[in-house]
Amino acid sequence: MPGNALENFRVVLVRPIYGGNVGSVCRAMCNMGLSDLALVEPRALDVGEARKMACNAADLLAARREFACLADAVSDCGLVVGTSARLGLYRQHSRTPREWAPALLDAARSGRVALVFGPEDNGLSNADLAFCTQLIQIPSTPEYTSLNLSHAVMLCGYELYVAAGAFEPSEEKSPAASSALRERMFAMWREALLTIGFMKEDKADHMMLGLRRIWGRSPLTEDDVRILMGVARQTLWCGRRVQSERGPGRPG
Amino acid sequence: MPGNALENFRVVLVRPIYGGNVGSVCRAMCNMGLSDLALVEPRALDVGEARKMACNAADLLAARREFACLADAVSDCGLVVGTSARLGLYRQHSRTPREWAPALLDAARSGRVALVFGPEDNGLSNADLAFCTQLIQIPSTPEYTSLNLSHAVMLCGYELYVAAGAFEPSEEKSPAASSALRERMFAMWREALLTIGFMKEDKADHMMLGLRRIWGRSPLTEDDVRILMGVARQTLWCGRRVQSERGPGRPG
Repeated sequence: MPGNALENFRVVLVRPIYGGNVGSVCRAMCNMGLSDLALVEPRALDVGEARKMACNAADLLAARREFACLADAVSDCGLVVGTSARLGLYRQHSRTPREWAPALLDAARSGRVALVFGPEDNGLSNADLAFCTQLIQIPSTPEYTSLNLSHAVMLCGYELYVAAGAFEPSEEKSPAASSALRERMFAMWREALLTIGFMKEDKADHMMLGLRRIWGRSPLTEDDVRILMGVARQTLWCGRRVQSERGPGRPG
Repeated sequence: MPGNALENFRVVLVRPIYGGNVGSVCRAMCNMGLSDLALVEPRALDVGEARKMACNAADLLAARREFACLADAVSDCGLVVGTSARLGLYRQHSRTPREWAPALLDAARSGRVALVFGPEDNGLSNADLAFCTQLIQIPSTPEYTSLNLSHAVMLCGYELYVAAGAFEPSEEKSPAASSALRERMFAMWREALLTIGFMKEDKADHMMLGLRRIWGRSPLTEDDVRILMGVARQTLWCGRRVQSERGPGRPG
Protein backbone atom coordinates (compact mmCIF):
# COMPACT_ATOMS: atom_id res chain seq x y z
CA MET A 1 0.00 0.00 0.00
CA PRO A 2 1.65 3.24 -1.10
CA GLY A 3 -0.38 5.24 1.44
CA ASN A 4 1.02 3.23 4.33
CA ALA A 5 4.56 3.58 3.07
CA LEU A 6 4.29 7.39 3.00
CA GLU A 7 2.99 7.37 6.59
CA ASN A 8 6.19 5.69 7.71
CA PHE A 9 8.46 8.56 6.65
CA ARG A 10 9.60 11.01 9.30
CA VAL A 11 10.88 14.43 8.25
CA VAL A 12 13.59 15.47 10.72
CA LEU A 13 14.72 19.12 10.74
CA VAL A 14 18.00 19.54 12.58
CA ARG A 15 18.41 22.89 14.37
CA PRO A 16 16.07 24.83 12.03
CA ILE A 17 16.41 28.60 12.39
CA TYR A 18 13.43 30.23 10.65
CA GLY A 19 9.85 29.57 11.69
CA GLY A 20 8.65 30.47 8.21
CA ASN A 21 10.69 27.66 6.72
CA VAL A 22 9.35 25.15 9.25
CA GLY A 23 5.80 26.23 8.34
CA SER A 24 6.56 25.87 4.61
CA VAL A 25 7.95 22.41 5.31
CA CYS A 26 4.63 21.47 6.98
CA ARG A 27 2.68 22.62 3.95
CA ALA A 28 4.96 20.74 1.55
CA MET A 29 4.67 17.56 3.65
CA CYS A 30 0.90 17.86 3.65
CA ASN A 31 0.84 18.38 -0.14
CA MET A 32 2.83 15.18 -0.59
CA GLY A 33 1.11 12.92 1.94
CA LEU A 34 3.77 13.02 4.69
CA SER A 35 2.70 13.66 8.27
CA ASP A 36 5.44 12.85 10.81
CA LEU A 37 7.56 15.92 11.66
CA ALA A 38 10.40 15.95 14.19
CA LEU A 39 12.51 18.97 15.12
CA VAL A 40 15.95 18.60 16.69
CA GLU A 41 17.02 21.51 18.90
CA PRO A 42 14.83 24.14 17.23
CA ARG A 43 16.46 27.43 18.23
CA ALA A 44 13.77 29.80 19.56
CA LEU A 45 11.30 28.82 16.84
CA ASP A 46 8.94 31.61 15.76
CA VAL A 47 5.73 29.57 15.88
CA GLY A 48 3.62 32.49 14.62
CA GLU A 49 5.71 32.72 11.44
CA ALA A 50 5.57 28.94 11.10
CA ARG A 51 1.76 28.93 11.37
CA LYS A 52 1.47 31.64 8.73
CA MET A 53 3.45 29.66 6.17
CA ALA A 54 1.90 26.31 7.09
CA CYS A 55 -1.53 27.52 5.84
CA ASN A 56 -3.85 24.50 5.90
CA ALA A 57 -1.13 22.30 7.41
CA ALA A 58 -1.43 23.87 10.87
CA ASP A 59 -2.47 20.52 12.40
CA LEU A 60 0.74 18.92 11.18
CA LEU A 61 2.74 21.80 12.66
CA ALA A 62 0.94 21.42 15.99
CA ALA A 63 1.62 17.67 16.04
CA ARG A 64 5.38 18.14 15.61
CA ARG A 65 7.68 16.54 18.15
CA GLU A 66 10.87 18.12 19.45
CA PHE A 67 14.01 16.23 20.40
CA ALA A 68 17.18 17.24 22.20
CA CYS A 69 19.42 15.41 19.74
CA LEU A 70 19.35 13.71 16.36
CA ALA A 71 20.00 10.27 17.88
CA ASP A 72 16.71 10.50 19.83
CA ALA A 73 14.75 11.77 16.82
CA VAL A 74 15.73 8.78 14.65
CA SER A 75 16.12 6.08 17.31
CA ASP A 76 13.17 4.00 16.05
CA CYS A 77 14.05 4.40 12.35
CA GLY A 78 15.65 1.77 10.15
CA LEU A 79 16.98 3.82 7.27
CA VAL A 80 18.20 7.31 8.12
CA VAL A 81 18.61 9.40 4.99
CA GLY A 82 20.62 12.59 5.15
CA THR A 83 20.46 15.43 2.63
CA SER A 84 23.57 17.31 1.68
CA ALA A 85 24.45 19.85 -0.98
CA ARG A 86 28.16 19.74 -0.22
CA LEU A 87 30.30 16.93 -1.46
CA GLY A 88 33.40 15.81 0.28
CA LEU A 89 34.83 13.01 2.33
CA TYR A 90 32.08 10.56 3.29
CA ARG A 91 29.58 12.54 1.20
CA GLN A 92 30.44 11.00 -2.15
CA HIS A 93 28.07 8.06 -2.09
CA SER A 94 24.96 10.23 -2.42
CA ARG A 95 22.23 9.68 -4.98
CA THR A 96 19.34 11.78 -6.22
CA PRO A 97 15.89 11.60 -4.58
CA ARG A 98 14.55 9.95 -7.74
CA GLU A 99 17.21 7.24 -7.57
CA TRP A 100 16.56 6.56 -3.88
CA ALA A 101 12.75 6.74 -3.95
CA PRO A 102 11.94 3.09 -4.82
CA ALA A 103 14.35 1.69 -2.20
CA LEU A 104 13.12 4.13 0.46
CA LEU A 105 9.47 3.29 -0.22
CA ASP A 106 10.34 -0.37 -0.03
CA ALA A 107 12.01 0.11 3.35
CA ALA A 108 9.09 2.25 4.59
CA ARG A 109 6.67 -0.62 3.98
CA SER A 110 8.23 -2.51 6.87
CA GLY A 111 9.69 0.18 9.13
CA ARG A 112 10.20 3.86 9.81
CA VAL A 113 12.46 5.88 7.52
CA ALA A 114 13.91 9.26 8.54
CA LEU A 115 14.62 12.04 6.04
CA VAL A 116 17.08 14.36 7.76
CA PHE A 117 17.59 18.00 6.75
CA GLY A 118 20.22 20.32 8.19
CA PRO A 119 20.01 23.92 9.40
CA GLU A 120 19.53 26.72 6.87
CA ASP A 121 22.99 28.19 7.34
CA ASN A 122 25.33 25.21 7.27
CA GLY A 123 23.45 22.04 6.47
CA LEU A 124 24.13 18.77 8.28
CA SER A 125 27.41 18.50 10.16
CA ASN A 126 29.70 15.50 9.90
CA ALA A 127 28.46 14.45 13.35
CA ASP A 128 24.86 14.54 12.05
CA LEU A 129 25.84 12.60 8.93
CA ALA A 130 27.33 9.84 11.06
CA PHE A 131 23.75 8.81 11.94
CA CYS A 132 22.74 8.56 8.30
CA THR A 133 22.70 5.26 6.43
CA GLN A 134 22.04 6.94 3.08
CA LEU A 135 22.76 10.31 1.50
CA ILE A 136 20.59 12.31 -0.86
CA GLN A 137 21.92 14.98 -3.17
CA ILE A 138 19.25 17.04 -4.90
CA PRO A 139 19.99 17.96 -8.53
CA SER A 140 20.78 21.65 -8.99
CA THR A 141 23.05 23.80 -11.10
CA PRO A 142 26.65 23.74 -9.90
CA GLU A 143 26.43 27.56 -9.77
CA TYR A 144 23.94 27.49 -6.89
CA THR A 145 23.55 24.21 -5.03
CA SER A 146 22.07 25.50 -1.79
CA LEU A 147 18.30 25.05 -1.70
CA ASN A 148 15.81 26.67 0.62
CA LEU A 149 15.01 24.17 3.42
CA SER A 150 11.34 23.78 2.48
CA HIS A 151 12.26 23.40 -1.20
CA ALA A 152 14.56 20.52 -0.31
CA VAL A 153 11.81 18.83 1.72
CA MET A 154 9.30 19.46 -1.08
CA LEU A 155 11.48 17.84 -3.76
CA CYS A 156 12.14 14.75 -1.63
CA GLY A 157 8.47 14.46 -0.67
CA TYR A 158 7.42 14.94 -4.28
CA GLU A 159 9.69 12.19 -5.56
CA LEU A 160 8.40 9.80 -2.89
CA TYR A 161 4.78 10.73 -3.59
CA VAL A 162 5.18 10.27 -7.34
CA ALA A 163 7.10 7.00 -6.92
CA ALA A 164 4.41 5.72 -4.54
CA GLY A 165 2.05 5.90 -7.52
CA ALA A 166 -0.78 7.39 -5.49
CA PHE A 167 -1.35 10.33 -7.82
CA GLU A 168 -4.10 10.00 -10.39
CA PRO A 169 -3.80 12.60 -13.10
CA SER A 170 -6.94 14.38 -14.17
CA GLU A 171 -8.72 12.72 -17.05
CA GLU A 172 -10.57 14.29 -19.91
CA LYS A 173 -14.21 13.66 -19.13
CA SER A 174 -15.14 13.81 -22.80
CA PRO A 175 -13.97 10.79 -24.81
CA ALA A 176 -11.83 11.15 -27.91
CA ALA A 177 -13.88 11.86 -31.01
CA SER A 178 -14.21 8.97 -33.48
CA SER A 179 -13.10 9.23 -37.06
CA ALA A 180 -16.74 9.13 -38.21
CA LEU A 181 -17.65 12.10 -35.99
CA ARG A 182 -14.61 14.06 -37.18
CA GLU A 183 -15.55 13.42 -40.82
CA ARG A 184 -19.10 14.71 -40.23
CA MET A 185 -17.53 17.84 -38.78
CA PHE A 186 -15.17 18.32 -41.72
CA ALA A 187 -18.08 17.84 -44.15
CA MET A 188 -20.01 20.60 -42.36
CA TRP A 189 -17.03 22.95 -42.50
CA ARG A 190 -16.51 22.18 -46.18
CA GLU A 191 -20.09 23.13 -46.95
CA ALA A 192 -19.97 26.21 -44.73
CA LEU A 193 -16.72 27.52 -46.24
CA LEU A 194 -18.07 27.01 -49.79
CA THR A 195 -21.29 28.79 -48.88
CA ILE A 196 -19.63 31.89 -47.38
CA GLY A 197 -17.30 32.09 -50.36
CA PHE A 198 -14.08 31.35 -48.49
CA MET A 199 -13.12 28.84 -51.21
CA LYS A 200 -14.35 27.48 -54.52
CA GLU A 201 -15.22 23.86 -55.23
CA ASP A 202 -12.04 23.15 -57.24
CA LYS A 203 -9.80 24.30 -54.38
CA ALA A 204 -11.96 22.93 -51.56
CA ASP A 205 -10.15 19.66 -50.88
CA HIS A 206 -6.82 21.43 -50.82
CA MET A 207 -8.05 24.11 -48.40
CA MET A 208 -9.63 21.49 -46.15
CA LEU A 209 -6.23 19.82 -45.76
CA GLY A 210 -5.07 22.95 -43.91
CA LEU A 211 -7.93 22.71 -41.44
CA ARG A 212 -7.41 18.97 -41.04
CA ARG A 213 -3.77 19.63 -40.20
CA ILE A 214 -4.61 22.29 -37.61
CA TRP A 215 -7.30 20.23 -35.90
CA GLY A 216 -5.44 16.96 -36.25
CA ARG A 217 -2.31 18.09 -34.43
CA SER A 218 -3.69 16.92 -31.11
CA PRO A 219 -6.61 14.57 -30.50
CA LEU A 220 -10.05 16.21 -30.46
CA THR A 221 -12.59 15.14 -27.86
CA GLU A 222 -16.31 14.77 -28.59
CA ASP A 223 -16.85 18.06 -26.73
CA ASP A 224 -14.31 19.79 -28.97
CA VAL A 225 -16.01 18.45 -32.11
CA ARG A 226 -19.41 19.56 -30.90
CA ILE A 227 -18.12 23.12 -30.46
CA LEU A 228 -16.56 23.15 -33.92
CA MET A 229 -19.72 21.68 -35.50
CA GLY A 230 -21.77 24.39 -33.82
CA VAL A 231 -19.56 27.07 -35.37
CA ALA A 232 -19.77 25.43 -38.81
CA ARG A 233 -23.57 25.14 -38.57
CA GLN A 234 -23.99 28.79 -37.68
CA THR A 235 -21.52 29.85 -40.36
CA LEU A 236 -23.49 27.86 -42.93
CA TRP A 237 -26.76 29.44 -41.75
CA CYS A 238 -25.22 32.86 -42.07
CA GLY A 239 -23.80 32.19 -45.54
CA ARG A 240 -27.14 30.85 -46.83
CA ARG A 241 -28.93 33.91 -45.52
CA VAL A 242 -26.54 36.20 -47.37
CA GLN A 243 -26.95 34.08 -50.52
CA SER A 244 -30.75 34.26 -50.37
CA GLU A 245 -30.66 38.05 -49.89
CA ARG A 246 -28.30 38.60 -52.78
CA GLY A 247 -29.79 35.98 -55.04
CA PRO A 248 -27.71 33.26 -56.71
CA GLY A 249 -23.95 33.80 -56.81
CA ARG A 250 -21.30 34.33 -54.24
CA PRO A 251 -21.80 36.61 -51.26
CA GLY A 252 -19.43 39.35 -50.16
CA MET B 1 22.11 22.18 -25.98
CA PRO B 2 20.15 21.67 -22.78
CA GLY B 3 21.66 24.81 -21.28
CA ASN B 4 20.29 26.96 -24.05
CA ALA B 5 16.86 25.39 -23.72
CA LEU B 6 16.66 26.32 -20.03
CA GLU B 7 17.62 29.91 -20.86
CA ASN B 8 14.56 30.17 -23.07
CA PHE B 9 12.07 29.59 -20.26
CA ARG B 10 10.37 32.60 -18.70
CA VAL B 11 8.78 32.29 -15.27
CA VAL B 12 5.75 34.59 -15.17
CA LEU B 13 4.19 35.37 -11.79
CA VAL B 14 0.72 36.84 -12.18
CA ARG B 15 -0.27 39.32 -9.45
CA PRO B 16 2.03 37.87 -6.77
CA ILE B 17 1.20 39.10 -3.27
CA TYR B 18 4.11 38.23 -0.97
CA GLY B 19 7.63 39.51 -1.52
CA GLY B 20 9.04 36.53 0.38
CA ASN B 21 7.50 34.15 -2.14
CA VAL B 22 8.89 36.11 -5.08
CA GLY B 23 12.34 35.94 -3.48
CA SER B 24 11.99 32.19 -2.91
CA VAL B 25 10.98 31.82 -6.56
CA CYS B 26 14.21 33.60 -7.59
CA ARG B 27 16.30 31.22 -5.49
CA ALA B 28 14.50 28.15 -6.88
CA MET B 29 14.98 29.42 -10.46
CA CYS B 30 18.66 29.97 -9.80
CA ASN B 31 19.01 26.45 -8.31
CA MET B 32 17.48 24.99 -11.47
CA GLY B 33 19.22 27.05 -14.14
CA LEU B 34 16.33 29.39 -15.02
CA SER B 35 16.96 33.13 -15.23
CA ASP B 36 14.11 35.04 -16.93
CA LEU B 37 11.56 36.34 -14.42
CA ALA B 38 8.51 38.42 -15.32
CA LEU B 39 5.97 39.82 -12.87
CA VAL B 40 2.46 40.81 -13.95
CA GLU B 41 0.84 43.53 -11.84
CA PRO B 42 2.84 42.85 -8.67
CA ARG B 43 0.76 44.44 -5.92
CA ALA B 44 2.98 46.63 -3.74
CA LEU B 45 5.79 44.08 -3.72
CA ASP B 46 7.89 44.03 -0.55
CA VAL B 47 11.29 44.04 -2.23
CA GLY B 48 13.13 43.80 1.11
CA GLU B 49 11.34 40.55 1.96
CA ALA B 50 11.98 39.29 -1.57
CA ARG B 51 15.69 40.03 -1.30
CA LYS B 52 15.90 38.21 2.03
CA MET B 53 14.45 35.00 0.62
CA ALA B 54 16.31 35.25 -2.69
CA CYS B 55 19.66 34.77 -0.87
CA ASN B 56 22.32 34.36 -3.56
CA ALA B 57 19.77 34.92 -6.34
CA ALA B 58 19.55 38.67 -5.70
CA ASP B 59 20.83 39.43 -9.22
CA LEU B 60 17.99 37.46 -10.74
CA LEU B 61 15.51 39.37 -8.57
CA ALA B 62 17.03 42.69 -9.62
CA ALA B 63 16.81 41.71 -13.30
CA ARG B 64 13.05 40.96 -13.11
CA ARG B 65 10.75 42.72 -15.53
CA GLU B 66 7.29 43.96 -14.66
CA PHE B 67 4.32 44.02 -17.03
CA ALA B 68 0.91 45.60 -16.82
CA CYS B 69 -0.87 42.53 -18.17
CA LEU B 70 -0.25 38.85 -18.91
CA ALA B 71 -0.63 39.39 -22.66
CA ASP B 72 2.40 41.72 -22.65
CA ALA B 73 4.46 39.38 -20.45
CA VAL B 74 4.07 36.44 -22.84
CA SER B 75 3.76 38.28 -26.18
CA ASP B 76 7.07 36.89 -27.55
CA CYS B 77 6.50 33.33 -26.29
CA GLY B 78 5.44 30.38 -28.39
CA LEU B 79 4.16 27.96 -25.80
CA VAL B 80 2.45 29.51 -22.78
CA VAL B 81 2.08 26.97 -20.00
CA GLY B 82 -0.32 27.66 -17.16
CA THR B 83 -0.26 25.98 -13.76
CA SER B 84 -3.47 25.13 -11.99
CA ALA B 85 -4.39 23.09 -8.95
CA ARG B 86 -8.10 23.34 -9.59
CA LEU B 87 -9.77 21.21 -12.19
CA GLY B 88 -12.88 22.23 -14.01
CA LEU B 89 -14.17 23.30 -17.37
CA TYR B 90 -11.25 23.93 -19.73
CA ARG B 91 -8.79 22.75 -17.04
CA GLN B 92 -9.13 19.04 -17.72
CA HIS B 93 -6.42 18.65 -20.34
CA SER B 94 -3.60 19.26 -17.87
CA ARG B 95 -0.59 17.01 -17.47
CA THR B 96 2.12 16.70 -14.84
CA PRO B 97 5.41 18.65 -15.11
CA ARG B 98 7.22 15.38 -15.74
CA GLU B 99 4.92 14.52 -18.64
CA TRP B 100 5.29 17.98 -20.20
CA ALA B 101 9.03 18.43 -19.65
CA PRO B 102 10.36 16.79 -22.85
CA ALA B 103 7.91 18.66 -25.11
CA LEU B 104 8.58 21.98 -23.36
CA LEU B 105 12.36 21.57 -23.63
CA ASP B 106 11.93 20.72 -27.27
CA ALA B 107 9.90 23.88 -27.85
CA ALA B 108 12.40 25.95 -25.85
CA ARG B 109 15.20 24.96 -28.22
CA SER B 110 13.61 27.09 -30.94
CA GLY B 111 11.63 29.74 -29.07
CA ARG B 112 10.61 31.25 -25.77
CA VAL B 113 8.34 29.27 -23.44
CA ALA B 114 6.40 30.91 -20.61
CA LEU B 115 5.59 29.11 -17.36
CA VAL B 116 2.71 31.04 -15.81
CA PHE B 117 1.87 30.92 -12.10
CA GLY B 118 -1.16 32.55 -10.49
CA PRO B 119 -1.49 34.63 -7.32
CA GLU B 120 -1.12 32.95 -3.93
CA ASP B 121 -4.77 33.35 -2.96
CA ASN B 122 -6.71 32.25 -6.01
CA GLY B 123 -4.39 30.93 -8.69
CA LEU B 124 -4.83 31.76 -12.37
CA SER B 125 -8.23 33.11 -13.42
CA ASN B 126 -10.09 31.82 -16.46
CA ALA B 127 -9.09 35.03 -18.26
CA ASP B 128 -5.41 34.25 -17.49
CA LEU B 129 -5.83 30.65 -18.63
CA ALA B 130 -7.18 31.82 -21.99
CA PHE B 131 -3.61 32.86 -22.88
CA CYS B 132 -2.23 29.43 -22.07
CA THR B 133 -1.60 26.81 -24.73
CA GLN B 134 -0.82 24.09 -22.19
CA LEU B 135 -1.80 23.33 -18.61
CA ILE B 136 0.33 21.82 -15.85
CA GLN B 137 -1.12 20.11 -12.82
CA ILE B 138 1.44 19.29 -10.11
CA PRO B 139 0.92 15.95 -8.35
CA SER B 140 -0.26 16.32 -4.76
CA THR B 141 -2.57 14.56 -2.36
CA PRO B 142 -6.23 15.25 -3.07
CA GLU B 143 -6.48 16.36 0.59
CA TYR B 144 -4.30 19.41 0.01
CA THR B 145 -3.69 20.40 -3.59
CA SER B 146 -2.69 24.03 -3.06
CA LEU B 147 1.09 24.48 -3.15
CA ASN B 148 3.13 27.42 -1.97
CA LEU B 149 3.96 29.57 -5.03
CA SER B 150 7.72 29.05 -4.81
CA HIS B 151 7.22 25.29 -4.30
CA ALA B 152 5.21 25.13 -7.52
CA VAL B 153 7.94 27.00 -9.42
CA MET B 154 10.60 24.78 -7.85
CA LEU B 155 8.92 21.54 -8.91
CA CYS B 156 8.42 22.73 -12.50
CA GLY B 157 12.00 24.04 -12.69
CA TYR B 158 13.32 20.83 -11.17
CA GLU B 159 11.53 18.62 -13.70
CA LEU B 160 12.85 20.74 -16.57
CA TYR B 161 16.37 20.75 -15.15
CA VAL B 162 16.40 16.98 -14.65
CA ALA B 163 14.85 16.34 -18.08
CA ALA B 164 17.46 18.64 -19.68
CA GLY B 165 20.04 16.12 -18.50
CA ALA B 166 22.46 18.79 -17.33
CA PHE B 167 22.88 17.35 -13.84
CA GLU B 168 25.88 15.16 -13.22
CA PRO B 169 25.53 13.17 -10.04
CA SER B 170 28.51 12.95 -7.76
CA GLU B 171 30.72 9.99 -8.42
CA GLU B 172 32.62 7.85 -5.98
CA LYS B 173 36.25 8.85 -6.43
CA SER B 174 37.45 5.48 -5.22
CA PRO B 175 36.89 2.66 -7.73
CA ALA B 176 34.98 -0.49 -6.80
CA ALA B 177 37.19 -3.06 -5.08
CA SER B 178 38.10 -6.09 -7.16
CA SER B 179 37.26 -9.61 -6.07
CA ALA B 180 40.95 -10.32 -5.46
CA LEU B 181 41.27 -7.34 -3.09
CA ARG B 182 38.10 -8.35 -1.25
CA GLU B 183 39.40 -11.89 -0.80
CA ARG B 184 42.67 -10.58 0.67
CA MET B 185 40.59 -8.59 3.12
CA PHE B 186 38.43 -11.57 4.10
CA ALA B 187 41.57 -13.68 4.60
CA MET B 188 42.93 -11.04 6.99
CA TRP B 189 39.67 -10.93 8.95
CA ARG B 190 39.58 -14.72 9.13
CA GLU B 191 43.03 -14.81 10.65
CA ALA B 192 42.29 -11.91 13.01
CA LEU B 193 39.03 -13.41 14.28
CA LEU B 194 40.71 -16.76 14.87
CA THR B 195 43.56 -15.07 16.73
CA ILE B 196 41.37 -13.04 19.08
CA GLY B 197 39.29 -16.12 19.82
CA PHE B 198 36.06 -14.89 18.22
CA MET B 199 35.69 -18.25 16.44
CA LYS B 200 37.38 -21.61 16.17
CA GLU B 201 38.79 -23.11 13.00
CA ASP B 202 35.90 -25.58 12.49
CA LYS B 203 33.30 -22.81 12.55
CA ALA B 204 35.41 -20.18 10.76
CA ASP B 205 34.01 -20.62 7.23
CA HIS B 206 30.47 -20.47 8.53
CA MET B 207 31.12 -17.33 10.59
CA MET B 208 32.87 -15.65 7.67
CA LEU B 209 29.72 -16.11 5.59
CA GLY B 210 27.99 -13.70 7.97
CA LEU B 211 30.65 -11.03 7.40
CA ARG B 212 30.60 -11.66 3.66
CA ARG B 213 26.85 -11.11 3.65
CA ILE B 214 27.13 -7.84 5.62
CA TRP B 215 29.92 -6.40 3.49
CA GLY B 216 28.58 -7.79 0.24
CA ARG B 217 25.19 -6.12 0.52
CA SER B 218 26.43 -3.08 -1.34
CA PRO B 219 29.58 -2.71 -3.41
CA LEU B 220 32.74 -1.87 -1.47
CA THR B 221 35.18 0.65 -2.90
CA GLU B 222 38.95 0.29 -2.65
CA ASP B 223 38.90 2.96 0.07
CA ASP B 224 36.33 0.94 2.04
CA VAL B 225 38.43 -2.22 1.76
CA ARG B 226 41.56 -0.38 2.90
CA ILE B 227 39.75 0.80 6.05
CA LEU B 228 38.48 -2.72 6.81
CA MET B 229 41.93 -4.23 6.17
CA GLY B 230 43.43 -1.72 8.57
CA VAL B 231 41.01 -2.76 11.29
CA ALA B 232 41.72 -6.45 10.66
CA ARG B 233 45.47 -5.84 10.75
CA GLN B 234 45.31 -4.03 14.07
CA THR B 235 42.94 -6.63 15.51
CA LEU B 236 45.38 -9.36 14.52
CA TRP B 237 48.27 -7.44 16.10
CA CYS B 238 46.28 -7.07 19.29
CA GLY B 239 45.24 -10.71 19.39
CA ARG B 240 48.83 -11.89 18.85
CA ARG B 241 50.06 -9.69 21.66
CA VAL B 242 47.51 -11.14 24.07
CA GLN B 243 48.47 -14.66 22.94
CA SER B 244 52.19 -13.99 23.54
CA GLU B 245 51.48 -12.59 27.02
CA ARG B 246 49.26 -15.47 28.09
CA GLY B 247 51.24 -18.14 26.30
CA PRO B 248 49.64 -20.69 23.97
CA GLY B 249 45.84 -21.02 24.11
CA ARG B 250 42.95 -18.66 23.55
CA PRO B 251 42.97 -15.13 24.94
CA GLY B 252 40.17 -13.54 27.01
